[in-house]
Amino acid sequence: MSSQDYKFEGWMGDSPASVNGAMEWREFKPKEWEETDVDIKITHCGVCGSDLHALRSGWGPTNYPCCVGHEIVGIVVRVGSKAEGGIKIGDRVGVGAQGESCLGRKGPCEDCASGNERYCGRHWAGTYDGVFMNGDKSYGGYALYNRTPSHFVVKIPDSIPSAEAAPMLCGGATTYTPLKRDGCGPGKSVGIIGVGGLGHFGILFAKALGADKVVAISRKGNKREDALKLGADEYIATDEDEGWAEKYNRSLDIILSTVSSAKMPLTQYVGLLKVGGTLTQLGNPDDGKLAIPAGALILRGAKLGGSVIGSPGDIRELLALAAEKKIKPWIEERPMKDANQTILDLNDGKARYRYVLVNEW
Amino acid sequence: MSSQDYKFEGWMGDSPASVNGAMEWREFKPKEWEETDVDIKITHCGVCGSDLHALRSGWGPTNYPCCVGHEIVGIVVRVGSKAEGGIKIGDRVGVGAQGESCLGRKGPCEDCASGNERYCGRHWAGTYDGVFMNGDKSYGGYALYNRTPSHFVVKIPDSIPSAEAAPMLCGGATTYTPLKRDGCGPGKSVGIIGVGGLGHFGILFAKALGADKVVAISRKGNKREDALKLGADEYIATDEDEGWAEKYNRSLDIILSTVSSAKMPLTQYVGLLKVGGTLTQLGNPDDGKLAIPAGALILRGAKLGGSVIGSPGDIRELLALAAEKKIKPWIEERPMKDANQTILDLNDGKARYRYVLVNEW
Repeated sequence: MSSQDYKFEGWMGDSPASVNGAMEWREFKPKEWEETDVDIKITHCGVCGSDLHALRSGWGPTNYPCCVGHEIVGIVVRVGSKAEGGIKIGDRVGVGAQGESCLGRKGPCEDCASGNERYCGRHWAGTYDGVFMNGDKSYGGYALYNRTPSHFVVKIPDSIPSAEAAPMLCGGATTYTPLKRDGCGPGKSVGIIGVGGLGHFGILFAKALGADKVVAISRKGNKREDALKLGADEYIATDEDEGWAEKYNRSLDIILSTVSSAKMPLTQYVGLLKVGGTLTQLGNPDDGKLAIPAGALILRGAKLGGSVIGSPGDIRELLALAAEKKIKPWIEERPMKDANQTILDLNDGKARYRYVLVNEW
Repeated sequence: MSSQDYKFEGWMGDSPASVNGAMEWREFKPKEWEETDVDIKITHCGVCGSDLHALRSGWGPTNYPCCVGHEIVGIVVRVGSKAEGGIKIGDRVGVGAQGESCLGRKGPCEDCASGNERYCGRHWAGTYDGVFMNGDKSYGGYALYNRTPSHFVVKIPDSIPSAEAAPMLCGGATTYTPLKRDGCGPGKSVGIIGVGGLGHFGILFAKALGADKVVAISRKGNKREDALKLGADEYIATDEDEGWAEKYNRSLDIILSTVSSAKMPLTQYVGLLKVGGTLTQLGNPDDGKLAIPAGALILRGAKLGGSVIGSPGDIRELLALAAEKKIKPWIEERPMKDANQTILDLNDGKARYRYVLVNEW
């Protein structure tokens, strides 16, 4: 299929005000076609907190117009002659938060060569609001079609419904990769701070990886029941449960922090780590630096880490695990036409726990 | 030998002013003898920055009177009937910074059981300014004799001179343990921030462990020659070398920070880490928290860690490595009678790189 009989249309944000439910539906010009690319007819797109940040220029100025959405699932409608991964027209595939890395095209790249495309320091284009190596802008999945370099397009296992696969591509990957890196598995106790889009995946993947105990940690008690249904063994409501820091002192091997504020009680959270444990920060706060007394790390040999999304290889791995363990994310499907209302609802904290926009083909 | 025909005498600090060269030599009462103890006739004691902190109550109020010194080497003169480790009278032994942990005497202890005595959360007595489980105070090595529970007494390999072994027991251990934990060895690039007592050991042990490249990092250029002689391959003077942060961006697998100030350029230092690297803070600043933008960790999958001293097992390991690789710390021997002048000189930054007090028996 070398010609294109479809138009790229989607929800465009034109200013920070777009986050207030003011995205506009219209046609956009995708990146110029290259023979390494894949065109996808989008069926589903997860709604990620990053979408709000980008629309409001929360992590720096967004290059408007911007079509957000980086949890894309759909059907392949065009494949370049140099595409990777054996992708064929008609395949059900997904695209996560990253659309391009250098892949060695700017000289040897230790990161891309080792499956760490997500950390490539030479070239990095987000699935939206990015700039490809050819100079063109990237546009995301709140749209009818998406064009992404094939290296960042993964096949979806048959047993995972598209609506459930979509949020695994970013939200799932962001929690899976640090759990795997830090040795989550039998014998380990894991804490998940924040029970939201990311946190709910943290619970699901920690259990799927075989952790002995998963403790969900939130400020209020109102997500206790959900967290336990998701598979958490215990729940801490830090605003309500007195003495939690002492009770859980040195009890966790691995902690993921999915909250996006530097104002959390980080020192107390690090105090929950066992000797040699790691707390990994996943949310990227825009309200200040993380601050921790050196002694809190020194006196328990602990580490404060960071991790970003997942590389294509990580995503293939977690999809295989999700298929094997029958992981069921908690999602709510919304028609693509309701994207504006959906981001308002996400911003209001109403998601339980991931909205997925659905195109009505 | 069941009776004691020697007196415990040493340099006593009686107030924060003692750090100004006002320690007084006098007799002190050691812990009550237990059959797990060892008495050591001290020949050498290294002078550690911690000694200054303790004398001046820098890490919280010191329980005066205090006899500092936790890099003790000497000859065993008394061994309890229940002593561990096959220690015999006449053995040349050492004691590092820790004098006691729970060792399971307060119920099962995961840390002590796994060779992590240094992180024991149930009981921890420093070699000085500590309180043993029997309620008695601990006194350190600026003295004639030392009494320490045998579990924390290690034999010194024959080939290592006592004066050189002494500073390995704390300064050496503090740098060796995180290097080992974080995988220092062939193929790795290591940064050592601060070229002082700890930092000089960091360079020596990183090379001994087989790191491909060791980069010494200091503010000024005046330690460049020393660092290269110690084995560093490269040297960064952060106040003088323009563009160092860019030049060394993402070039190091492991960094040890031996500086004791939170005002260092931590974000730039973390920027020197390769993807997945760890910067471990060893100095415990008393001038504020470590502060780092979450993004600096997230965008390279990096970790900010802490580590404290070494457990007896770690110390045995590093002494064996030092013997095998013929590690030669840079020390300056001083007579024990000059202890007051020696701590003044250390405080003035004159050490190159470790003073060792020597008893004239």
